[in-house]
Amino acid sequence: MVSVKEVKEMFKPKLKPIIWDDNENKLTVLDQSVLPFQKVFVELRTPEDVADAIRLMKVRGAPAIGITAAYGMVLAVLRAENLNDVIKLMHDAKSVMDKARPTAVNLSWATSYMLNRAREYIEKGEAKDVKELITLLKKDANKIFDDELEAEIQMGLYGLEKLNPGDVVLTQCNAGGLATGTGLGTALAPVKLAHILGIDVSVIAPETRPWLQGSRLTVYELMEEGIPVTLITDTAVGLVMYKKMVNSAMVGADRILADGHVYNKIGTFKEAVIAHEMGIPFYVLAPVSTFDLKSSVDNVKIEERDPDEVRTVRGVPIAPENVKVFNPVFDVTPPKYITAIITEKGVIYPPFDKNVRKIIEK
Amino acid sequence: MVSVKEVKEMFKPKLKPIIWDDNENKLTVLDQSVLPFQKVFVELRTPEDVADAIRLMKVRGAPAIGITAAYGMVLAVLRAENLNDVIKLMHDAKSVMDKARPTAVNLSWATSYMLNRAREYIEKGEAKDVKELITLLKKDANKIFDDELEAEIQMGLYGLEKLNPGDVVLTQCNAGGLATGTGLGTALAPVKLAHILGIDVSVIAPETRPWLQGSRLTVYELMEEGIPVTLITDTAVGLVMYKKMVNSAMVGADRILADGHVYNKIGTFKEAVIAHEMGIPFYVLAPVSTFDLKSSVDNVKIEERDPDEVRTVRGVPIAPENVKVFNPVFDVTPPKYITAIITEKGVIYPPFDKNVRKIIEK
Repeated sequence: MVSVKEVKEMFKPKLKPIIWDDNENKLTVLDQSVLPFQKVFVELRTPEDVADAIRLMKVRGAPAIGITAAYGMVLAVLRAENLNDVIKLMHDAKSVMDKARPTAVNLSWATSYMLNRAREYIEKGEAKDVKELITLLKKDANKIFDDELEAEIQMGLYGLEKLNPGDVVLTQCNAGGLATGTGLGTALAPVKLAHILGIDVSVIAPETRPWLQGSRLTVYELMEEGIPVTLITDTAVGLVMYKKMVNSAMVGADRILADGHVYNKIGTFKEAVIAHEMGIPFYVLAPVSTFDLKSSVDNVKIEERDPDEVRTVRGVPIAPENVKVFNPVFDVTPPKYITAIITEKGVIYPPFDKNVRKIIEK
Repeated sequence: MVSVKEVKEMFKPKLKPIIWDDNENKLTVLDQSVLPFQKVFVELRTPEDVADAIRLMKVRGAPAIGITAAYGMVLAVLRAENLNDVIKLMHDAKSVMDKARPTAVNLSWATSYMLNRAREYIEKGEAKDVKELITLLKKDANKIFDDELEAEIQMGLYGLEKLNPGDVVLTQCNAGGLATGTGLGTALAPVKLAHILGIDVSVIAPETRPWLQGSRLTVYELMEEGIPVTLITDTAVGLVMYKKMVNSAMVGADRILADGHVYNKIGTFKEAVIAHEMGIPFYVLAPVSTFDLKSSVDNVKIEERDPDEVRTVRGVPIAPENVKVFNPVFDVTPPKYITAIITEKGVIYPPFDKNVRKIIEK
């Protein structure tokens, strides 16, 4: 079995959504809002640039937003003339960036973490000047990136054990390296590691209306890496499983409860039910930070979004403009339809109400 | 219980996809290719006009195509100066129209039927001149329309017995009055009859990619009649059943086998599996002409269409232009997921392998 460290050295993604230049202190991101039609990299010079990029969905996906914001906090310190300026500058930067996506937990977590680290370095005298502080904070931001990547590699290696050469994997939405910012991803990690290790595996990607993350992002990301992928409409998810065109399904998660209920992009539930009915293994891949051990299925509200996302596609109308719409962002998959939940701490099998805590709290 | 005849008198649809003026001998159709963005009626003056309208999808749906072509055969006879011209003119008209949609069985059935009727009228001396022949053939074309409408009303009445006041019905694609040409429809007939009879019933319509018949046609058709309808993406089909937002599902069919396997628009299978799993009744509504008692599930080929239908929406790209695509038109739903098949001859319950023939061949 290959190690996380070995894979990390072998991991040279063609697709790098977040690039930090440690010598030049330069942050560059791939503009995801125009993918796959244009491949545009934008340099973010200030925390305000970072906030704009997040607001305009140039950077999207919870881990990717967190990593970008951590570097945004470094950019804030670059403005400081002496250590006395730093905390105020970082406070302002955090405030500006946190507002860009108020519901993104990773965003405010990353800005708080960087602010607290800076406070500690200054209070403990570990940073004697701005230059030293920048060096320390850059290490912290890089570590957030590296920790994310290593967790994904570990998940990917656990997931790889579920794949055989020649397998076709059904996914949903984009739980790939664009969403996490590392270029690897969660649900797509096993497939990408298979590719790196020379194991022949391919993917079927549903387009995932209304946002089309499947057709716009997953397909693009896999094609960039040279991994075979076939695009289908969301209506064809059933037939590909009925015809046994896929060997397993692998999806990400937005929130996982202690009893194994999984909240993920709308459309996940139907995929899980059909997989269960057709005897196809259904795996959820998510870091332990995704688990919410406090909530129950009765008190998690499913967010609804703008009806025009359903009435239009890329700005083009596809329905009567005044039609009533129900546009939920997520659905919930009960534990009975899930074969296993794969985390960086290990693979969780049913009964989830017992085994989730065993792995997550270990 | 209200009769077919009584309902037929009450049925005054706001939406009339095919209008034949018996006095003026004038055929007008609603251009479905530009719905719901424009409501345009076009007059079809010749069999060539009819062929064009079918080819350009201005008229779509198997029964609608059949009815339009029957009137197209009347238009051919309008050109005749004497009875000697008639058969050649009708032959030419049939040839032109049949080519417009070579796989549409209703189309060549309708043109053959009208041609044979004309032959009989002439041979038996029932039509002594062109004027008399036109009168007889108009009756035949009107009867094709009326038979279709009466079958739909009968199906609708059987389906209505499955609905309760306040029910919400999930459908798929457009199995409505646009597809059949009558303004009533198959899967939508129970809901429309409920509306006519003052019973409060509403519909949830999935958009049905890639063609978007749900968002473009079903939603439009129900809104025109004042029936409450909510549009969802295909990804949200699972959640609406999980949340018990619907009381039943009603869909049409393209082909039904003797053992109860149902071929219908891609996406039907997933709806049936989830309905079964969630304990929601799943009904298929189709005329007896839909049954194929000779084929088995192993020898029905599922047609695939142009990948660009998936790569684009209304001409706008939504994916990398060279991505590999799997674009099946239909899927197949095994009998175990179907609560009942509703035909104009009666309701068929499981076991379908016994009961289909009992109803269809009676």
